[in-house]
Amino acid sequence: MTDRRFMERAIELARQGKGWTNPNPLVGAVIVKDGRVIGEGYHARCGEPHAERNAIAALTEPAEGADLYVTLEPCCHQGKTPPCTEAILEHKIARVIIGSRDPNPKVAGKGAAILREAGVCVEEDFMREECDRLNPVFFHYITEKRPYVVMKYAMTADGKIASRTGASKWITGEEARARVQELRWTYMGIMAGIGTVLADDPLLTVREEGRRSPVRIICDSRLRIPEDCRICRTARTYPTVVVCAMDEAGTDYLEKRKRLQEAGLHVVSVPGEKGQVDLGRLMELLGGGDIPGIGAVDSILLEGGGILNDSALQAGIVREVKAFIAPKIFGGGGRTPVEGTGVELPSEARRLRLDKITRIGGDLLLEYLAEGGDGTCLRE
Amino acid sequence: MTDRRFMERAIELARQGKGWTNPNPLVGAVIVKDGRVIGEGYHARCGEPHAERNAIAALTEPAEGADLYVTLEPCCHQGKTPPCTEAILEHKIARVIIGSRDPNPKVAGKGAAILREAGVCVEEDFMREECDRLNPVFFHYITEKRPYVVMKYAMTADGKIASRTGASKWITGEEARARVQELRWTYMGIMAGIGTVLADDPLLTVREEGRRSPVRIICDSRLRIPEDCRICRTARTYPTVVVCAMDEAGTDYLEKRKRLQEAGLHVVSVPGEKGQVDLGRLMELLGGGDIPGIGAVDSILLEGGGILNDSALQAGIVREVKAFIAPKIFGGGGRTPVEGTGVELPSEARRLRLDKITRIGGDLLLEYLAEGGDGTCLRE
Ligand SMILES: NC(=O)c1ccc[n+]([C@@H]2O[C@H](COP(=O)([O-])OP(=O)(O)OC[C@H]3O[C@@H](n4cnc5c(N)ncnc54)[C@H](OP(=O)(O)O)[C@@H]3O)[C@@H](O)[C@H]2O)c1
Ligand SMILES: NC(=O)c1ccc[n+]([C@@H]2O[C@H](COP(=O)([O-])OP(=O)(O)OC[C@H]3O[C@@H](n4cnc5c(N)ncnc54)[C@H](OP(=O)(O)O)[C@@H]3O)[C@@H](O)[C@H]2O)c1
Repeated sequence: MTDRRFMERAIELARQGKGWTNPNPLVGAVIVKDGRVIGEGYHARCGEPHAERNAIAALTEPAEGADLYVTLEPCCHQGKTPPCTEAILEHKIARVIIGSRDPNPKVAGKGAAILREAGVCVEEDFMREECDRLNPVFFHYITEKRPYVVMKYAMTADGKIASRTGASKWITGEEARARVQELRWTYMGIMAGIGTVLADDPLLTVREEGRRSPVRIICDSRLRIPEDCRICRTARTYPTVVVCAMDEAGTDYLEKRKRLQEAGLHVVSVPGEKGQVDLGRLMELLGGGDIPGIGAVDSILLEGGGILNDSALQAGIVREVKAFIAPKIFGGGGRTPVEGTGVELPSEARRLRLDKITRIGGDLLLEYLAEGGDGTCLRE
Repeated sequence: MTDRRFMERAIELARQGKGWTNPNPLVGAVIVKDGRVIGEGYHARCGEPHAERNAIAALTEPAEGADLYVTLEPCCHQGKTPPCTEAILEHKIARVIIGSRDPNPKVAGKGAAILREAGVCVEEDFMREECDRLNPVFFHYITEKRPYVVMKYAMTADGKIASRTGASKWITGEEARARVQELRWTYMGIMAGIGTVLADDPLLTVREEGRRSPVRIICDSRLRIPEDCRICRTARTYPTVVVCAMDEAGTDYLEKRKRLQEAGLHVVSVPGEKGQVDLGRLMELLGGGDIPGIGAVDSILLEGGGILNDSALQAGIVREVKAFIAPKIFGGGGRTPVEGTGVELPSEARRLRLDKITRIGGDLLLEYLAEGGDGTCLRE
């Protein structure tokens, strides 16, 4: 009998890899015999064994005739580790219950097919939606090869991300800020604009011990970044890319670039329209691992001000919007999460889909999905 | 045995009076004998019998020895109707279970005391919080004699209440707009600024048949309201007050005022600082029924633009904020729900308390309470 509880447990296990598996997916596996769990495991870190192999390694009795619940279709190719289908067959597991399908349409179903051919009973799409929710980044990245970008901002109930003077410390309470820290170690990169660096001199790191900090990516068209800002001063500890849009040949550029490089920063020029960074191209470079000294980046937390956020939406790179809303009113003119020109009419609005609402302390977290097949948000 | 289900039913009944009882409270009553409901009623309309009397009138058998569940302490004074305590005693009801206390501290407890002295068993504060939530307007108005003001706005996920060109039709979807219609008949008045009238030419009425439209109150310091706007053209059907801040003696004022009055509008001047309407004083006049031709107003839905909303917050008249949030992004500069100067630092923010979150269609309704004993919002 197929049982939701075992898949729920597999999902719970999968989550334990959060922050460590990128660009691999989160996967959990539970082996069940006569209604009892006899082995469980998850993919703990990129390069280490897959969930199925960890569950097998943890077996408390032989798996012959057992059921395997696994949140993602087992792999059937030799990667950093041998194919999981082999291990499943070797251990004579009788039934495999799969949550998510392999997102790569070219290989999807192959793992299941190999198992079936070998006489294993395979059930697919079991709690698929819940399992799919584990891996929005992986599903996006494996097919698009560009980072999954999550725009995050903290605003007041009257739509301000900073006070009149540009101050934004703090808008939300402690619990919400702790959640932002968690977001930072969930994604591989963090991106901000030079406006935010100049206004707030942020660190953009993870404070929690034992957690990986994301690669810092600063969009700074004209290399205005102050050499004594906190980001520059910590660039040897936390990998940092400054992305400008300058003529590579200019001497101004070469000198400042050299000084920044000496301080440990990576500097690239990705010029686009209006003399600013070409965000689409930047995503290609980051996704492809084409920026020297920086590995491939599968996901980015965008903590931009209103200007960069607007450009990111225009460039169609945003997949999710996470809006923290504080129970406060600032009043005043601009300082909203998305600036730029703005639409002329409400009917031209960029549309999102509200996915999740969470109370965090006194604040609220609204999670929206940007829809549209090509990664851009829909317009009405 | 005291039973939550009967009080829940009384609360449900009370709600049926919504939109009709002001400035009286919503009250529901259920009479129970041997675990069966033998009579129920609610206060249906201001001037008509109280809930207890309606429940008694609906009795299907004698109430001798029965329990009465009532959401608000029974009255003991002769008002438009005779005291309910008398009817309770007359019908030999044995036990009275009370939700909310009479909010007027001078009379609170007297109804209960009279019943107790006559030998009735009285239980107070039963599900008091739930019962209190029926009547925020009444509780406020009875003690303050000023209207309970609810600031309502519809904004995008990026904090805009209008597009770049000032258009705000529509930000939210149909269901949310239907909810706004309900809010309009829930409160006795509706207030907007001349900025909104000039931008949107709104009607500010209730479209639903058989529902009362609120008194329209337009803050228009210099009587700029166009005589051919929809509000002016419908002023004979829907009571409308134009509040200016002009020198009563000026001839300009006198002439336009005369024309507006001929069109059926009420015009008053309530000058304050900066040549604009004194909102605090206006609330006193509205609460006291001191505007000729307009009865006392116990509650106001403020559908202001950012300028009037800011003034209302500054004047400390706002008790609740209802923010509808649409899953959309407009981008662009200003156009936020609260404008004005704005706070210099986040620590100076005006604070709210998040009370309720409701999904309405694809939109979200966030309901906030403004805290502070004197009706103003707290500052941190
Ligand atoms: N509450 C929050 O969640 C939050 C988060 C972040 C920031 N903030 C606040 O936001 C304010 C700063 O916002 P901001 O809008 O001025 O700064 P921003 O969005 O962080 O940075 C904008 C700058 O990025 C550079 N840039 C490079 N390539 C770009 C491109 N393709 N598109 C757009 N910009 C590009 C531009 O500089 P060049 O002119 O050199 O091209 C632009 O001026 C501060 O007050 C900060 O406190 C609040
Ligand atoms: N989405 C929504 O929920 C929503 C709701 C309403 C409006 N809107 C949008 O908001 C925009 C209009 O906003 P707005 O801010 O210009 O207009 P507003 O707030 O409706 O009206 C402001 C005007 O009210 C007058 N006023 C009189 N006494 C005042 C006082 N004590 N304090 C402040 N103002 C006083 C002032 O005119 P004087 O200069 O003559 O003194 C002031 O300019 C429009 O684009 C509209 O579509 C959106």
